[in-house]
Amino acid sequence: MIDFKWLQTEKKVAREAFDKAYQKECDVIIAKLKKMIKTTKEPDDIWRICDYLTEQRDRTDEKYDYRYSVLIFVFARLIKEGWLTEADLEGIGKDKIEKVQFLLTM
Amino acid sequence: MIDFKWLQTEKKVAREAFDKAYQKECDVIIAKLKKMIKTTKEPDDIWRICDYLTEQRDRTDEKYDYRYSVLIFVFARLIKEGWLTEADLEGIGKDKIEKVQFLLTM
Repeated sequence: MIDFKWLQTEKKVAREAFDKAYQKECDVIIAKLKKMIKTTKEPDDIWRICDYLTEQRDRTDEKYDYRYSVLIFVFARLIKEGWLTEADLEGIGKDKIEKVQFLLTM
Repeated sequence: MIDFKWLQTEKKVAREAFDKAYQKECDVIIAKLKKMIKTTKEPDDIWRICDYLTEQRDRTDEKYDYRYSVLIFVFARLIKEGWLTEADLEGIGKDKIEKVQFLLTM
């Protein structure tokens, strides 16, 4: 947990970046879902989709945590995984960006 | 619970009828799923599908109980709901059919 002060302008950038990454990740889930449904015929195929979605919900719920105390860690993880780039965080203070960059080297 | 004796030939008919109803009900779930997915764009749309499938799994798990001690009740319910007709149970002994018919009048 890090106790940074977030300015209103930074909060706006942070929220947009966060939502963008979440939407991108959900777009991948939707694409996979559409692919799965194409071959869905048997009851077990349905429950396989159900298991997949439950797993994705648990995984994204854990990852997309918008508390300011953990947001730097979230952003570092999203960049590492390719859902965001550093450019998406433009407008966020240098203190926070440096912390993200430090986390990316770990 | 009813303690009927089930002959091998009756078990075969029962299993086929049971599986047929389950598949029919699952086909409806699949059709609804395909319809839902067509308008899926936002993250919340995904989790709505996840909720829907979880609900359907709980509902069908509870309903499709293949223990011989409860099968007569299951068949009566499936006929009442339109997933089976009495003709699907042809080959099952008169004692059991009469019990199903009795349950249908309740």
